[in-house]
Amino acid sequence: MTSSYDTITTRLDGRVLYATFSAPPINLIGPEVVRDLVQLLDDLTQPGAARVVVFDSADRDFFFPHVDMTKVPEYTAEAAKGGGPGDASLGMLFRKLSQTSTVTLVKLRGRARGAGSEFALACDMRFASRENAVLGQPEVGIGAPPGAGAVQHLARLLGRGRALEAILTSADFDAELAERYGWINRALPDADLDAFVAQTAHRIAAFPRDALIAAKAAVNAITLPAPDAVRADAALFQQLVRSDSVQQRAGDLFQRGFQTRGPVELELGQALGDLKAAD
Amino acid sequence: MTSSYDTITTRLDGRVLYATFSAPPINLIGPEVVRDLVQLLDDLTQPGAARVVVFDSADRDFFFPHVDMTKVPEYTAEAAKGGGPGDASLGMLFRKLSQTSTVTLVKLRGRARGAGSEFALACDMRFASRENAVLGQPEVGIGAPPGAGAVQHLARLLGRGRALEAILTSADFDAELAERYGWINRALPDADLDAFVAQTAHRIAAFPRDALIAAKAAVNAITLPAPDAVRADAALFQQLVRSDSVQQRAGDLFQRGFQTRGPVELELGQALGDLKAAD
Amino acid sequence: MTSSYDTITTRLDGRVLYATFSAPPINLIGPEVVRDLVQLLDDLTQPGAARVVVFDSADRDFFFPHVDMTKVPEYTAEAAKGGGPGDASLGMLFRKLSQTSTVTLVKLRGRARGAGSEFALACDMRFASRENAVLGQPEVGIGAPPGAGAVQHLARLLGRGRALEAILTSADFDAELAERYGWINRALPDADLDAFVAQTAHRIAAFPRDALIAAKAAVNAITLPAPDAVRADAALFQQLVRSDSVQQRAGDLFQRGFQTRGPVELELGQALGDLKAAD
Repeated sequence: MTSSYDTITTRLDGRVLYATFSAPPINLIGPEVVRDLVQLLDDLTQPGAARVVVFDSADRDFFFPHVDMTKVPEYTAEAAKGGGPGDASLGMLFRKLSQTSTVTLVKLRGRARGAGSEFALACDMRFASRENAVLGQPEVGIGAPPGAGAVQHLARLLGRGRALEAILTSADFDAELAERYGWINRALPDADLDAFVAQTAHRIAAFPRDALIAAKAAVNAITLPAPDAVRADAALFQQLVRSDSVQQRAGDLFQRGFQTRGPVELELGQALGDLKAAD
Repeated sequence: MTSSYDTITTRLDGRVLYATFSAPPINLIGPEVVRDLVQLLDDLTQPGAARVVVFDSADRDFFFPHVDMTKVPEYTAEAAKGGGPGDASLGMLFRKLSQTSTVTLVKLRGRARGAGSEFALACDMRFASRENAVLGQPEVGIGAPPGAGAVQHLARLLGRGRALEAILTSADFDAELAERYGWINRALPDADLDAFVAQTAHRIAAFPRDALIAAKAAVNAITLPAPDAVRADAALFQQLVRSDSVQQRAGDLFQRGFQTRGPVELELGQALGDLKAAD
Repeated sequence: MTSSYDTITTRLDGRVLYATFSAPPINLIGPEVVRDLVQLLDDLTQPGAARVVVFDSADRDFFFPHVDMTKVPEYTAEAAKGGGPGDASLGMLFRKLSQTSTVTLVKLRGRARGAGSEFALACDMRFASRENAVLGQPEVGIGAPPGAGAVQHLARLLGRGRALEAILTSADFDAELAERYGWINRALPDADLDAFVAQTAHRIAAFPRDALIAAKAAVNAITLPAPDAVRADAALFQQLVRSDSVQQRAGDLFQRGFQTRGPVELELGQALGDLKAAD
């Protein structure tokens, strides 16, 4: 693992790679994060790479708040370098993440909304701080359906009624409710989270690699969406995100402090409910 | 929204339509209810229609107890007017309900059994009173498999083991257990239910309509059963409901007070267990 | 029901057959258990057979710990007699179990790991002692993916993230966590378990048989994996179980007391974590 990254701090402990996202001020998913993620995914395919990766965030308030809405073309262009030939979308990049032979764990503190939640959903397991993790899909409240996997994953994990609730309300889900609905594997007391995830990661990393790879591939064959469904979601998002409706609502949010550390991003679920009704 | 209905009281509050079923004495799903539901679904497609509908019941003991077993041909004939060309079944009518571009919420108090549960399952979200909501699929206990969507929805929402338990035992599920199994979105304290559902409905109604429609359609594409499966369930129900076994068991229930307000309908799960063993 | 079995004690109570596995010393799934299971499945198809079967174990510590790792060819040969033409695998035998028209309930005390968990997953409903039931898929920790249904069932019941956790960690799940994840229908207080399962079994057995069979078949059509997927899982297991990796790790476990009553089998999840890291 010789790469260095602008927005990811890595630490290798035996066969486990700890990868901590750090993209100040609030860990928006922009071109730099996506470029680093593409690189990391490539590095994981190299001989001798880690067998398990634990992702977390250097910012306790924000895992990933969502994409940088001012740089959709730029991060999409970066995603195109990793998602496969002709596939320029975060959705296809995240699908590739789901298919990597490395086992991927997310240690979730702070807000994981929009593509931040979708990143977590693309990983293999999600363990969250009971006290401070928040998940949400704010896209519909802004004016577009989620485009990078949430529709696919939440429909399968939560079932129709709860997936529609999560997606159509764009509400914030605390860790306890996210666990109850199946959005995450478990909510754990914050004080126990680090030790639990580390123990889980090292346990898995000591198991025979052929078995891990075969078992993950077998589960993927049943649970991952078909590429065409991921592409269709991405295309719809990329179309609607340019609509007048999204431009206006995102504009209102920017006027209130969107994409900065402050009440709108901390309580985005509430801020969406405070916006003027759409036409 | 100019229609008036015999069995539905409506109140429009901004973009939210509150639709309260009232078919005394106990809200059986008979031809009148089905006719009104067909009309309401049509009204929802008109320009300027509500964006969110909240369904509840005027009877706190009975959301919908089940279909009127004395009027299966009559309500099926009414369903045929709404389910699409050649599709004479509640199942296909409920599938159409699932596909409407309006967002549909159920506020559940009292008993929702049989096609009453299936109506709720066809809606987008189900919020239930923790104290007094009851769900059940009594069909197998009477002698036929559920025919209007329960097999399809419960298999997907609850998984094989719990769906088989719900369907093969025909037992009553209280709101807490229904929540735990995923039959409903959430069980809420009765005192909080109205405010929670109203807040959810108005929140969704203020979001951009294109996003709501696109997101719901995307979730539907993953989660709704194929029409042929719905038709097959309906055909099997319509065949077995005429069997000697059903005639005899329903006859026994009628002698004890079936389809009237009383202990058999209030505790139908128990009443089914008290019936003489089938041949 | 005229057969007698070497490893199953049966008691017929009305239409309910209680079938208790007893294969001392620790109820390993070996050729005798599989032969008896093949016979029992055949007996259940005879006229006048029970309508509901309740499976449990005579050993309160072990429901089924897993297969007898020293007799894979032998039990596979027995499974071939029941799984259908050309299908020599526990997976296909268990799929046949899922398809039997008899309703199958599992009353779970003690450890159900590996194919023991997969047997339970193949049954229609699983009720477990809250105090002492344990479920696990230790296969990956030994060096092969589960081969007799766990991948298929857990992916569908638990969803991608939790299924990957269960399968890739090979950890022990207590009844409470297994219930929360959907691995079992319910965890019940040990003191209530017998009465609850008996009441459920007799309730179902009194319902019309045509309805039970039709409803189970309809749920199966949605929830059971395709035969080819089951065959692929079995083939992969049968290949990897002969690998050097599995031979070495199983050898280490045998040196510590594997397949005998003792700490390794009682706490197999922990024992797998204590093994030397695989290459």
